[in-house]
Amino acid sequence: MIDHPAYPVEPWALRETELHLDMVAQTESVFALSNGHLGLRANFDEGEPRALSGTYLNGFYESYPLSYGEGGYGFAEDGQTLLNVTDGKLIRLLVEDEPLDVHRGRLERHERVLDLRAGQLEREVHWRSDAGHAVRVTSRRLVSFQKRSVAAISYEVEALEVPMRVALQSNLLANQRDVPSGNDPRDATALDGALVSQLSVQNGLRVVLAHATRRSGLALAAGMEHVIETDAVTTTRVENEPDLGRVTISARLDPGQRLRLVKLLAYHWSSQESVEWLRDQVDASLENAVAEGFDRLAAAQRTYLDVYWALADIELDGDPEIQQALRFALFQVLQASARVENRAIPAKGLTGSGYDGHAFWDTEAFVLPVLTYTRPELVRSALTWRHSTLDLARERARQLGLGGAAMPWRTIHGEECSGYWPAGTAAFHVNADVADAVRRYLSATGDEQFAREMGCDLLVETARLWASLGCEDDDGHFRINGVTGPDEYSALVDNNVYTNLMAQRNLLSAAACVERDPDTATRLGVQPDEAATWRAAADSMYLPYDDRLGVHPQDQDFITHERWDFEATPADGYPLLLHRHYFDLYRKQVVKQADLVMALFVRGDAFTAEEKRRDFEYYEALTVRDSSLSACVQSIVASEIGHLDLAYDYLGEAALMDVDDLERNALDGVHIASLAGAILAVIAGLGGMRDHGDVLSFAPRLPDGLERLAFPIVFRARRLRVEVTPLQAVYSVHEGDEPLEISHWGESIEVKPGAPVTCPITPAPRLPAPTQPAGRAPARRRVQG
Amino acid sequence: MIDHPAYPVEPWALRETELHLDMVAQTESVFALSNGHLGLRANFDEGEPRALSGTYLNGFYESYPLSYGEGGYGFAEDGQTLLNVTDGKLIRLLVEDEPLDVHRGRLERHERVLDLRAGQLEREVHWRSDAGHAVRVTSRRLVSFQKRSVAAISYEVEALEVPMRVALQSNLLANQRDVPSGNDPRDATALDGALVSQLSVQNGLRVVLAHATRRSGLALAAGMEHVIETDAVTTTRVENEPDLGRVTISARLDPGQRLRLVKLLAYHWSSQESVEWLRDQVDASLENAVAEGFDRLAAAQRTYLDVYWALADIELDGDPEIQQALRFALFQVLQASARVENRAIPAKGLTGSGYDGHAFWDTEAFVLPVLTYTRPELVRSALTWRHSTLDLARERARQLGLGGAAMPWRTIHGEECSGYWPAGTAAFHVNADVADAVRRYLSATGDEQFAREMGCDLLVETARLWASLGCEDDDGHFRINGVTGPDEYSALVDNNVYTNLMAQRNLLSAAACVERDPDTATRLGVQPDEAATWRAAADSMYLPYDDRLGVHPQDQDFITHERWDFEATPADGYPLLLHRHYFDLYRKQVVKQADLVMALFVRGDAFTAEEKRRDFEYYEALTVRDSSLSACVQSIVASEIGHLDLAYDYLGEAALMDVDDLERNALDGVHIASLAGAILAVIAGLGGMRDHGDVLSFAPRLPDGLERLAFPIVFRARRLRVEVTPLQAVYSVHEGDEPLEISHWGESIEVKPGAPVTCPITPAPRLPAPTQPAGRAPARRRVQG
Repeated sequence: MIDHPAYPVEPWALRETELHLDMVAQTESVFALSNGHLGLRANFDEGEPRALSGTYLNGFYESYPLSYGEGGYGFAEDGQTLLNVTDGKLIRLLVEDEPLDVHRGRLERHERVLDLRAGQLEREVHWRSDAGHAVRVTSRRLVSFQKRSVAAISYEVEALEVPMRVALQSNLLANQRDVPSGNDPRDATALDGALVSQLSVQNGLRVVLAHATRRSGLALAAGMEHVIETDAVTTTRVENEPDLGRVTISARLDPGQRLRLVKLLAYHWSSQESVEWLRDQVDASLENAVAEGFDRLAAAQRTYLDVYWALADIELDGDPEIQQALRFALFQVLQASARVENRAIPAKGLTGSGYDGHAFWDTEAFVLPVLTYTRPELVRSALTWRHSTLDLARERARQLGLGGAAMPWRTIHGEECSGYWPAGTAAFHVNADVADAVRRYLSATGDEQFAREMGCDLLVETARLWASLGCEDDDGHFRINGVTGPDEYSALVDNNVYTNLMAQRNLLSAAACVERDPDTATRLGVQPDEAATWRAAADSMYLPYDDRLGVHPQDQDFITHERWDFEATPADGYPLLLHRHYFDLYRKQVVKQADLVMALFVRGDAFTAEEKRRDFEYYEALTVRDSSLSACVQSIVASEIGHLDLAYDYLGEAALMDVDDLERNALDGVHIASLAGAILAVIAGLGGMRDHGDVLSFAPRLPDGLERLAFPIVFRARRLRVEVTPLQAVYSVHEGDEPLEISHWGESIEVKPGAPVTCPITPAPRLPAPTQPAGRAPARRRVQG
Repeated sequence: MIDHPAYPVEPWALRETELHLDMVAQTESVFALSNGHLGLRANFDEGEPRALSGTYLNGFYESYPLSYGEGGYGFAEDGQTLLNVTDGKLIRLLVEDEPLDVHRGRLERHERVLDLRAGQLEREVHWRSDAGHAVRVTSRRLVSFQKRSVAAISYEVEALEVPMRVALQSNLLANQRDVPSGNDPRDATALDGALVSQLSVQNGLRVVLAHATRRSGLALAAGMEHVIETDAVTTTRVENEPDLGRVTISARLDPGQRLRLVKLLAYHWSSQESVEWLRDQVDASLENAVAEGFDRLAAAQRTYLDVYWALADIELDGDPEIQQALRFALFQVLQASARVENRAIPAKGLTGSGYDGHAFWDTEAFVLPVLTYTRPELVRSALTWRHSTLDLARERARQLGLGGAAMPWRTIHGEECSGYWPAGTAAFHVNADVADAVRRYLSATGDEQFAREMGCDLLVETARLWASLGCEDDDGHFRINGVTGPDEYSALVDNNVYTNLMAQRNLLSAAACVERDPDTATRLGVQPDEAATWRAAADSMYLPYDDRLGVHPQDQDFITHERWDFEATPADGYPLLLHRHYFDLYRKQVVKQADLVMALFVRGDAFTAEEKRRDFEYYEALTVRDSSLSACVQSIVASEIGHLDLAYDYLGEAALMDVDDLERNALDGVHIASLAGAILAVIAGLGGMRDHGDVLSFAPRLPDGLERLAFPIVFRARRLRVEVTPLQAVYSVHEGDEPLEISHWGESIEVKPGAPVTCPITPAPRLPAPTQPAGRAPARRRVQG
């Protein structure tokens, strides 16, 4: 956890005003830049000190054989790991005879700013060498949202006080070695020398390197081009080696004189195109980027973001720290998804190599619900990727003896890469999560073309999976046995409530889809009685319930299990998975992350208010939040039930996960799903928005201390704005001609464009606060009294 | 499965009369020689053709890091694999210019005989080279039961028809390479070049090589000495290299002239002694062996076996094939255990490297129940090994957050080596199996010293494990959740009946032990109320029961699961584990091996006769016998219920498992537990012997076709002989002065020494035959009508 007052609270930026070497790892992640296609960790221009150097291309991975102490049929054979590709961020500076290195000399000023409206990382350094030469370095860096393959750096050095000779070395470096990883199973797999040189060329101040992977069959070309701006006399030298391009610029600067280097980077990769063609693409992208120049690229970046903020910005008055964190979250969600274009959205975006750069259910269950109501076209893009993996998922289902398609638990390219099947392959709920994202997207957009071409395929193949995975018991109940739900401290359980409810909705969504579109049903070979079978399974879906306690067990046997001894678990015994064997976690009542409580949110239509209250309180006392996917969900359900202070606390935890490094693993990259979850905690939590049917419902209510919340919702080509104050909510429609029907606290209202509707909010009931496991209460957002 | 009439039926030998190259792998295992300390696979003298060359020293292993696709806390870190050590079996023959190789020339006669009374493997070969030179080779090989470190080979070559020059090369070869293994998870781990040369010396016709392992810290010395007997003129040459000793003998033989080479081998190893000392031990052993000579070693071998057969032989009239198989089984059980001396008894004995040479619960649950009533001192030895691993098991329990000791699921040295914890670490029943072996041994021998020094330790530490593993539920039941029972097609279940019943007995045995011996209880730190806690847990042990079906579910949820679709499973789809993912096996009603049915046998005191009948029939229809540990148990319970034909069929399957290679994996070594199980199927099955309390009970009954069964039982320093014919049983006591109380079909009888008691047997009820899964019925022993 970060104890420094590292980032001052301000509305539109994350700012670092002092350099703390122990925060290098974390800042590399939170200041990382990405457009969803190309990602640059916030390594210093000079490259070091560093925790993890990172330059990532979405989908550019190496595969490697997974090994097992004892293998088994159908165990995932190959792992995939996101590669740290050719690094073009490097600009090293020599001042007279000394390298600018924050370990040496004296750092008289250090500031870095992630400007959320400019989409740039800015850095200013005043440094004095041990020999006494002082310089001011100003750099700006962007990864272009508009030009998907392009990044640009403006690097300026100014001599202070005395004349001096400086040299800049601008590098393009492949196969950089990083520190070895530890034993944390969430770490990335280290593959040294993964890139094999294919081509290395220079021309003028430009160098292009091309490399290929050894096993995954991918090739990439990376290039750098330079524009020098100075009135000093410069000499330049250009070198290229198989793994290195280097442009060195030497200049003698008088005091106040500046040397500015604009460095333009371009990356292209492919599994099919030749290295030569990729090199041409890089040269062309560089040509375009040079023609634009840094300043025009920066202006376009701001324009792109202006549009985004108008669509997505959330205003929260009364807590400027959370306001800042929410904008950071919205920015990171955009960075992870903006130019993904039919690739996966990884759990860490492109900010680090945690979880090997894999995508999980996080995407469909946390990120897409946010994007659906801000940038729905990005949801379509992400689901297009899922659709493109259907053949692999069908093959996997066949291997598992199942029908339909079995989506991978974790993957980059589409193959199952989970090396521990009880928490991977068995977590079939990912299929229903994908299906629910399809349902939500279709409901929010009415995109019939997508439904026809891809959406129905996804719904049908996942429904077929459930139909084959479950079975009818002697009492006519449809049971789903031997699966793992969201909570990874249970595994291989019978009738996980979340899974069963999500499968139920999946089956019904598929039935509705094929009934609506017989042509597509025919294309997918849907048999005449197949939809009826799905409906029958959904209608008879078994949901265990414990009459004695009046709560839903997370799975059929959960409540018969021993309660975890939280009182005997020391604070440094968390996360439990690093200190306790799975066998012990699995057989006891201890919850890593919202599971039944996730069902209370996503399938809230299946529970009464009273059931939600009892269930929430029961699981609240068992949930240790060893996953970053928990606090946001607990916040949402706490809001609904009326535990507003607790909802606020969890909102804080979700929103500050990365900025405050609450899980101490921000080195691996930011937690995109938790950040998206923080946004959901505001919209679905404080705003009380639900999308169970085709009408959006709201039940807003603010905790004490928050004065105003305003957020936009894109829905069926209209823009709805919701503004909540303690005693009322105002709904207004800003685009489109048609009125929009919504519901406010259960009451149907019609909002006409240009005619805001104001609705009253009644205060929350006073409920006794639920308790958390010993030592696991969230940090309080405000002193309660 | 073996289709050749490979081994003619005869009472005291296993004989091969033709060479089938496709049976080389299997014969290497079934003709293997071992004394439990040193094992030689039955490779041909000349070394090739071979499937797997094998020379094993019990406990001599290498360790290697286990890797995981995704690791987790407490996963076993290192594997251990039995090493193929320095091979002294090799004697190669050159006839004029051609090597004797069964691939070449013409094999005019080939016979190998495993003589079960002589304890020798004999071979006779008439071979004619492509150039037309004919020789007769006669070899005999033994691994001495009496001299633990010694093996001896008598190799004789005789020139036939024409004079010829022959050369013998007697080798001692380390780091022999074998063919790479396949994908079967039951295969051994291949470690090339595992032995590092420490010493290589020659003296006269003797060579000694010493090697050490790289990681496990073990050293071994192996030596060979030679005695040449011939009236021909010979020249000899002796060579030694780091990994090779070679003695070459050349002779010109006239027709009818013979060259006999007696080769003596000695092996010593240690984790502590120096290589120099080990070398001295080898030289001393060789000196002793030379002094004895082959013939005296062979005579001592026969004497040792005469004693054994008098103690252990089972006579079964009416089925000479089974009679032969039972003697083979008794011989293999002896080979696996005779000179183990405080080391483990591996699942394959020392006949192959299957399962990496690991010991499992097989030892305590299958092998020791046989040895208890024939060679109880070997049980003491095997349990002494378990006792010696207690510190490791205590440490493992602590790592798992448990009390007491957690025995490894599989190991050579004592550390947990299971690389797949759901079928390893979670199979806690191994602890109760060890405890039950202790209970049985103490009951059968009254060995108070063992109880004091080791037995009570084992009972107490395993009882403590159960006390910490289980929990009391709201209804006051003691539950054991999240464990894996014997059936490996289920995992991580709640309240496995076998486990709960065995834990119950374990808890009661420990309580009785500490109550009987307060001093030992004090030494073990047993708290005043601890035994009471164990009794309370045992008394309230939860046993699930399905009222609707009137059967015990294998575990609490088993019967709610979908039934495996046996009808849709093709014959070549077995064993299922090689064709189906564990996830699917685990969540369906399909049983790899007797589990609930194992409980019906071992804890038969916990079930009524009617429950046994219903339970047996229910599980019979679900049990596919993909494990060799199943048929014998099914045979025993079928006997008890009265399904005598079925019991007979399963007896055949268990007894012929290796001789007929029923599981097609005899390459890996013989199935010691199945062979022991075949003996149990006779004694506990046909003989109906049970040892639930301190009085042995019998309920003998023969299936149609068997005329007489006689077997000895060593019990509390007496020898009981049981002779069963279709209508009566005769019990006689042959040693000791005291009468022995036993029970016959529930009736208590007293058998006085020298006064046999004859009791009547009533015929079995006519019951409808239970059914097996489609295609999984056992082969019939007789045509039924």
